Amino acid sequence: MQININNIDEKEVEKELPKNGSQASELRQDIVTGDWVVIATGRAKRPDVFANLERVKDDKGIERCLFEDPVASGQEPDVLIYADKEGEWSLRVFPNKFPTVSQLATIGPKPEGPYFSMPGVGFHEVIVTRDHFKHLAMMNTLEVAEVFDAYQDRYLDLMNKKNVNFIAIFHNHGKEAGASLTHPHSQLMAIPVIAPYPRLELDGAEMYYRSNRQCVYCVMTEYESQFKERVVFENDEFIAFCPFASRVAFEVWVLPKKHSPYFERITDEQKIKLAEVFSKGLGSIYKGLNDPAYNFYINTSPCDGKDYPHFHWHIEILPHTSIWAGFELETGIEISTIQPEVAAEYLRGKL
Amino acid sequence: MQININNIDEKEVEKELPKNGSQASELRQDIVTGDWVVIATGRAKRPDVFANLERVKDDKGIERCLFEDPVASGQEPDVLIYADKEGEWSLRVFPNKFPTVSQLATIGPKPEGPYFSMPGVGFHEVIVTRDHFKHLAMMNTLEVAEVFDAYQDRYLDLMNKKNVNFIAIFHNHGKEAGASLTHPHSQLMAIPVIAPYPRLELDGAEMYYRSNRQCVYCVMTEYESQFKERVVFENDEFIAFCPFASRVAFEVWVLPKKHSPYFERITDEQKIKLAEVFSKGLGSIYKGLNDPAYNFYINTSPCDGKDYPHFHWHIEILPHTSIWAGFELETGIEISTIQPEVAAEYLRGKL
Repeated sequence: MQININNIDEKEVEKELPKNGSQASELRQDIVTGDWVVIATGRAKRPDVFANLERVKDDKGIERCLFEDPVASGQEPDVLIYADKEGEWSLRVFPNKFPTVSQLATIGPKPEGPYFSMPGVGFHEVIVTRDHFKHLAMMNTLEVAEVFDAYQDRYLDLMNKKNVNFIAIFHNHGKEAGASLTHPHSQLMAIPVIAPYPRLELDGAEMYYRSNRQCVYCVMTEYESQFKERVVFENDEFIAFCPFASRVAFEVWVLPKKHSPYFERITDEQKIKLAEVFSKGLGSIYKGLNDPAYNFYINTSPCDGKDYPHFHWHIEILPHTSIWAGFELETGIEISTIQPEVAAEYLRGKL
Repeated sequence: MQININNIDEKEVEKELPKNGSQASELRQDIVTGDWVVIATGRAKRPDVFANLERVKDDKGIERCLFEDPVASGQEPDVLIYADKEGEWSLRVFPNKFPTVSQLATIGPKPEGPYFSMPGVGFHEVIVTRDHFKHLAMMNTLEVAEVFDAYQDRYLDLMNKKNVNFIAIFHNHGKEAGASLTHPHSQLMAIPVIAPYPRLELDGAEMYYRSNRQCVYCVMTEYESQFKERVVFENDEFIAFCPFASRVAFEVWVLPKKHSPYFERITDEQKIKLAEVFSKGLGSIYKGLNDPAYNFYINTSPCDGKDYPHFHWHIEILPHTSIWAGFELETGIEISTIQPEVAAEYLRGKL
């Protein structure tokens, strides 16, 4: 698969010195498949003790965690903070202290023999809600809507930055899902390349449109809403269902019913509707599978200045119910042990 | 990505009744990306107690495991057995008792609304070496060569079966890598579709050849052999190196130096040379990372009756050193925390 590396400004980007000894990372391309990997040696410095240190008692006997008081624990300065009239914060966003991509490097291709790499330029931020114990599945609709507010705010701020062509927004919950801290937090990574999986979806949606003159996600959404068997919950604006070709057991997708390629254009009213459906979907996974580890992420169009009229943004929630073993790694074919229809029926019972 | 579903015989395949209550599985296609998933509900029946049951004492106090005496533990009848003159077996192959694909179903597409599925037709076999405790990294060259013998024997037998167009050969070691039993075993899955990842490599190699009139794997192999920095071990026929765009820390690839698209055409002499290089590569991971969980698999050309002159078969060894979290799941971009050059230097020190 060829990755779009156009639209990259080959001039130097800001060369801020690392604030905490983190190193610039490198994007390397697989010359067979065109896929990218990130070699981020700075991330290996994350102390292993984090797992134990994340809730420690201070000298007054009060428990603290790295994200409960980000200033005291030496996180990077906030780029966004939501607070009430009394100044009590409810959500804040700051750069990741161990970034996978950063503003440390110069941009531009770097050849080595037959290979090709480029510096890992971009933004890597952490979106933190205040309560250490209240994770997303336990929040009410307004609290969840505020998280989506923050995603949108940061997206809108970063999408026009130099060398940012794609923004990944994702959330890891539980160690098995790769969360290194239990304090609820989402992450946002703004990068210069359009990643392979989004590229597959963009191309697939485009091809489907060319053949059928319809958005493939609209077709799915309408079919699922009529068919009902795989629906977990829906309102007039959004639908949550277990996809026909679920890759993992209890996978849930959340889609807007009305066609829209761009998450960042969501209205405040829609965010409330989204939060309702998302909360029901995630909540049924939380209750039904006894708080499993999970990942979710937003698939939206790139921000590379081009139009993606045939894409349809959505959220994919993947409970961590299985391990990728040799067959999956070799083939890219996932094995799921429950029919999505059965999974959806079970989740509906947990609403 | 479109999957090749030509070359499938749409007539019924053998309809053997399940011997142990296992169910036919289903291949479902993602209509956006063209990717496949397997819904294998029968595999959910694998008892969770396996992990505890795999080494139990019999009434004489002798420890037994399910694969040490496959006949006594009720495995399927052998399809291949290697034994010495006294009849003592060293390796045996039998159908997986909880198959992901099987001969239970009829073949052919099954539409549902806008979607598409087909029965999970194919062969799923287990390749078991005798010693419960001696895993591949501990075997000598001849013992490893015998495992490759078995891979080749089974490949040659299955490649011409009806509806078999691709054969995945893989090995999972350790629970974190998805091995459900610790007894050393490889698996082989013969399926009707060419899987997405192999398709990417086949297409990539073809495209590279069209642009450069050279095999991309030959280019890599020659460059690495000269450059040395990423080489772990090599002899005159094979090379083991950490790939430039390693997806995981300490990833090692093993390639024949002489161009060959088809693993199954390997000669006995080459198998010994392969076993030497493979053992050094895997052995250095075993020693260097203190017996980590790992997966390895053979990437070879499909057996769909077409020619793949520009592909170059190889083995990929992936130590389980990280978890796919939200970013990897969303983007398909892997994050590795060590440079392949540093990893190779470390592994060379463990030869």
